[in-house]
Amino acid sequence: MRKLSDYIAEVKPVSMDVLDEVQRRLDNQTKPQGSLGRLEELCRVMAMAQRTPHPKYERKIIFTMAADHGVVEEGVSAYPQSVTAQMVLNFIAGGAGVNVLAKHCGADVVVVDMGVASRIEAEGYIDRKIDFGTRNFTKGPAMTLEQAEKSVVTGIELALDYDYDLLGTGDMGIGNTTASSAIGAVITGASVEEITGFGTGISEDGWRKKVNVIKRGIEVNKPDRDNPLDVLSKVGGFEIGGIAGLIIGAAIKKSVSVVDGFISTAGALIAASLCPFTKDYMVLSHRSAEKGHSIFYAYLGKEPILDLGLRLGEGTGSAIAMEVIDAAMHLYYEMATFEDAGVDRKVE
Amino acid sequence: MRKLSDYIAEVKPVSMDVLDEVQRRLDNQTKPQGSLGRLEELCRVMAMAQRTPHPKYERKIIFTMAADHGVVEEGVSAYPQSVTAQMVLNFIAGGAGVNVLAKHCGADVVVVDMGVASRIEAEGYIDRKIDFGTRNFTKGPAMTLEQAEKSVVTGIELALDYDYDLLGTGDMGIGNTTASSAIGAVITGASVEEITGFGTGISEDGWRKKVNVIKRGIEVNKPDRDNPLDVLSKVGGFEIGGIAGLIIGAAIKKSVSVVDGFISTAGALIAASLCPFTKDYMVLSHRSAEKGHSIFYAYLGKEPILDLGLRLGEGTGSAIAMEVIDAAMHLYYEMATFEDAGVDRKVE
Repeated sequence: MRKLSDYIAEVKPVSMDVLDEVQRRLDNQTKPQGSLGRLEELCRVMAMAQRTPHPKYERKIIFTMAADHGVVEEGVSAYPQSVTAQMVLNFIAGGAGVNVLAKHCGADVVVVDMGVASRIEAEGYIDRKIDFGTRNFTKGPAMTLEQAEKSVVTGIELALDYDYDLLGTGDMGIGNTTASSAIGAVITGASVEEITGFGTGISEDGWRKKVNVIKRGIEVNKPDRDNPLDVLSKVGGFEIGGIAGLIIGAAIKKSVSVVDGFISTAGALIAASLCPFTKDYMVLSHRSAEKGHSIFYAYLGKEPILDLGLRLGEGTGSAIAMEVIDAAMHLYYEMATFEDAGVDRKVE
Repeated sequence: MRKLSDYIAEVKPVSMDVLDEVQRRLDNQTKPQGSLGRLEELCRVMAMAQRTPHPKYERKIIFTMAADHGVVEEGVSAYPQSVTAQMVLNFIAGGAGVNVLAKHCGADVVVVDMGVASRIEAEGYIDRKIDFGTRNFTKGPAMTLEQAEKSVVTGIELALDYDYDLLGTGDMGIGNTTASSAIGAVITGASVEEITGFGTGISEDGWRKKVNVIKRGIEVNKPDRDNPLDVLSKVGGFEIGGIAGLIIGAAIKKSVSVVDGFISTAGALIAASLCPFTKDYMVLSHRSAEKGHSIFYAYLGKEPILDLGLRLGEGTGSAIAMEVIDAAMHLYYEMATFEDAGVDRKVE
């Protein structure tokens, strides 16, 4: 395994040089300047990441990263831990939300076991199990520092192993809104109460318990917000480290990563803290219903492109956002220019 | 031509009876209840409109309704009037934004001349020209009351003439944000300043002029906000009446209409004022960059499903929203249930 720092050194800033040509193309199209709003922004991001005014977008892949969380023994989730492994089988069988949406947008789904608590008895997934779930972070670190680094490097190497024009992230892991909230509270400096939401559907009482569990985890472990691997190891999860790695790996490949929802954005916080250049390669897909999400993306200085009240994870938001990017790229390549269409320009 | 009131009497309320079965289906799918947010809402709207828990969604059509506006002689637009007809030719040739996006979502585009100021020298569009543009509403009514009724009935009959599962609206008409702002100010009761935006890209000075023009139009004509045809005739446009008609016609056919942006929502205000039942058949596609839009949809009691900063019209927002509806319906029909997938349910 190569060292994380070696990989991080390979991430280069996106190119601003392509912007003039991209903008010229957009402004020659038969529409008022800027009237395609965020669709135009998506064209710019794609071009800047790929360092060409002719970015590719056809080949799409969504990585659904699964792992379990020891902290579930504190009763922080509405679902039993068994659901993580069962959902992995559902992803493999093609019956989950992400499968349906990925098919719809023409993306492949790659299911990765980053650390599910049981052995997955099936084929059709990638086994990168780091451990059988993290440990309960109210009693000590969720994982070792070595495991934290390994989870990120695993994500990077997955991103490097595949061919695609757009990489989407996704997650599965009962308890992972708890770990993501803890990461987010530490990195952004916001209070645990501001960050913590209702996950897959806990009660008011469940919410108070979850807040206390996260606070205890932070008190017991004292994660260092300036050291993202320390944060990941103490209150994170294997799939979250993997997602951070995917984002870094995509950036090494000069590709845009489409970041799913709350858990993936926690991964993006880790990626951006490890390597700030990665921010310019990210497209945040949607505003999660999870309350702390807006604090995460404000910290990244980014706005998600969709607001559909989703709180499913898996990569479902990434898949829908990929449709929008697809639409943007079609406009970019296929619209007529004022000259082609014989349409008069704006009166100056 | 049948009378408008006869058509309006044919619009029936959507069905609430299907909701239990739709919800049962959604709640049996392998996801936390409600976790697909607004996608689940779209499934409910489709089912309620079509009065079946098995709504169809495959056949899509977008009507791009074009007309000119006499008020442009007051200098309210950034583009010359010639652009309306030129863009109609661009729609017919397939080079405009709506063509690209409609192709992407599998929708047909039907281009309708509702009242372009010149004769369209081409084939491949529907000629329903009511007049060669409206009159300048600062000097009297934009059209006669008969023309207002005819524009709405024309839209209804177009909607009845075609077969589709989803109807999208779209507009083209230099000057039509001015007419739409005037309609919106009268119907919602908001001030002209609150409603009026920058259209296709006017300056601050241009904005002040536009506000004054709209105020003058309202003062001179005194439209009666309780009489939508009166409002349409005095400060509206032929394409806006046509769009109101499309929405009513789709409702008669028990179909959802996907309402594009600012101009289409002005049409929706007319439709909802003529026939409140139509509101439950509407999906507002996107939050327009045009500032008064939020006042329009708050008045309708609805929230658009996308917020992409679009301000192009044509039906471009409808096309992207159709992709999202498509995604929602795929989830509805294709996701595995807890039983199928052997996934444990929530701990109660």
